[in-house]
Amino acid sequence: MAAAERHQNDLTKPPGSLGRLETIANRCAAIFGSLTPPLDSARIVVFAADHGVAEEGVSAYPREVTAQMVLNFLNGGAAINALAQAGGIDLVVVDAGVATALPDVPGLIRHHIADGTRNFTREPAMTETQMKEAVEAGMAEADTAVADGYNLLGCGEMGIANTTSAAAIAAVLSGLPVKDLTGRGTGADDACLMRKISAIERALVLHRPHLATPADILQRLGGFEIAEMCGFFLGAAAHRRPVVVDGFIATAAAALAARMDANASDYMFAAHRSAEPGHAALLEVIGQAPLLDLGMRLGEGTGAALAIKLIQSAVAAFTGMATFSSAGVSNKTS
Amino acid sequence: MAAAERHQNDLTKPPGSLGRLETIANRCAAIFGSLTPPLDSARIVVFAADHGVAEEGVSAYPREVTAQMVLNFLNGGAAINALAQAGGIDLVVVDAGVATALPDVPGLIRHHIADGTRNFTREPAMTETQMKEAVEAGMAEADTAVADGYNLLGCGEMGIANTTSAAAIAAVLSGLPVKDLTGRGTGADDACLMRKISAIERALVLHRPHLATPADILQRLGGFEIAEMCGFFLGAAAHRRPVVVDGFIATAAAALAARMDANASDYMFAAHRSAEPGHAALLEVIGQAPLLDLGMRLGEGTGAALAIKLIQSAVAAFTGMATFSSAGVSNKTS
Repeated sequence: MAAAERHQNDLTKPPGSLGRLETIANRCAAIFGSLTPPLDSARIVVFAADHGVAEEGVSAYPREVTAQMVLNFLNGGAAINALAQAGGIDLVVVDAGVATALPDVPGLIRHHIADGTRNFTREPAMTETQMKEAVEAGMAEADTAVADGYNLLGCGEMGIANTTSAAAIAAVLSGLPVKDLTGRGTGADDACLMRKISAIERALVLHRPHLATPADILQRLGGFEIAEMCGFFLGAAAHRRPVVVDGFIATAAAALAARMDANASDYMFAAHRSAEPGHAALLEVIGQAPLLDLGMRLGEGTGAALAIKLIQSAVAAFTGMATFSSAGVSNKTS
Repeated sequence: MAAAERHQNDLTKPPGSLGRLETIANRCAAIFGSLTPPLDSARIVVFAADHGVAEEGVSAYPREVTAQMVLNFLNGGAAINALAQAGGIDLVVVDAGVATALPDVPGLIRHHIADGTRNFTREPAMTETQMKEAVEAGMAEADTAVADGYNLLGCGEMGIANTTSAAAIAAVLSGLPVKDLTGRGTGADDACLMRKISAIERALVLHRPHLATPADILQRLGGFEIAEMCGFFLGAAAHRRPVVVDGFIATAAAALAARMDANASDYMFAAHRSAEPGHAALLEVIGQAPLLDLGMRLGEGTGAALAIKLIQSAVAAFTGMATFSSAGVSNKTS
């Protein structure tokens, strides 16, 4: 990190004038232990799963949309497809636990833990075995990405009702009131928002005595896509690869990963500030400030796709610029 | 614009969930009058010039750095070179009025009005003839970019002491106190900042009775690169092309263009919020909110290069996504 900071100050620009692009590049240099960190090759993995809590009427969309959107990803019609293509980013789609049976479509990766989680207002969302299986599946996807030659990772998600799960996780991790952390997700109306807050509050009453560890929180209040993303972040850190955290739900997974492994957040870059009100509390847990603030609230990895280009640009400036002496440019008079 | 908004709501995402990416794409559709606005081909023009007010000791860097950085641009060693290359953006470098004689280097475009402006603490920065000549040169560069097939334009600048000129323009346009609008530019120390504020305040006392029109402000307090950028923005609007406004100094030029032609700001996209304190007042004049906020304060078009990728991504989502009916995705239950 110190060597990267010295190199930044030799480049033909006033020190600090590239703002956060400089700290991004310095972090990437530190992660790779190199003044020429390779970040040309990026992959985003989208994890999809269904949530038992959807039966509490917490989403504006019906549950079958999860499977429909997975097929949309595989057919190239979703926002993440367009943004990944525009950014030259490889895209992988994982069924982490979609409730509706998915046909055999080329490209679909199956880490299907079960047909959706249980309704966490009544029982734990998943068993301990399922939670561990999901975390390991996410770690395996990080292994695969690294083995396939990708040096900049990102992840995103799809899952009807998963903002309810993420808000519940945010409430436990932050201790803040549920109503301050719960938003409208994909567009809940007032009645739907009330049901969402009520569902989370009832779940917290039920599970509160059993939430001592991040693994407990994940098992009782998480989703299969959240557990697999959590494993993906742990895997990225184990491989020492920078990994971009998408929005609200991905940050819930990242926050749990950071609580499981104190070093994990060193490899995380927060893509953007989600429009969801609970996001700030989760960003605080991972200790990363978001790069973008565009009022996005879609998920899928759409924020990660935009941030990946910023990170690659930051590193391009760091590795591509001339130094004052090599370019014959005068340095400061003072 | 209405047709673009309707199209956004047909795409496979909750309405509004892509946040500002949606309004960016809608504006581009309105500008081109098309639901498939072509934005694949971007050019940034960097205008460089020297400033007579530099002799008041308002910059941390010596004046010859302007010419040295122009050569650095032409040799590919500056931040804007790395960022333009990373973004697949064509880059053009214009000598608008650099004081130091520049050698004949391939790629250098000469719209050289004079060897730097006059010191505006004592007299107008340029003559009316020079001002008009510079604005026309900038318009000609917009003509050339469009003739060369570029459909997304941007501009940036280089000029030692040009934050002093931009702050003076911001003070006249906003009526706010000079000290609230004047920053450290490339890294002025306290004494340098005091000289900068004093120079602007003396200039305003001298010129105040003669600043009735935006052309007057440009002539008396501007720079040749600012005048050429002003013409570039007017030219982009005349050709109905989206144009990205870089940072503080580019926004000073854009603000004058917006005052000269009330329609000009319809084509402008503000790239980022500069770390310079006077930027907000100028953004208000053009009525555009910045897309990025990364603490950058370099100029050169570096913010524009990053924003161009965001705009292209926003349009890629708009034109590349499937609709609910075509993808077989269920729409909202409510």
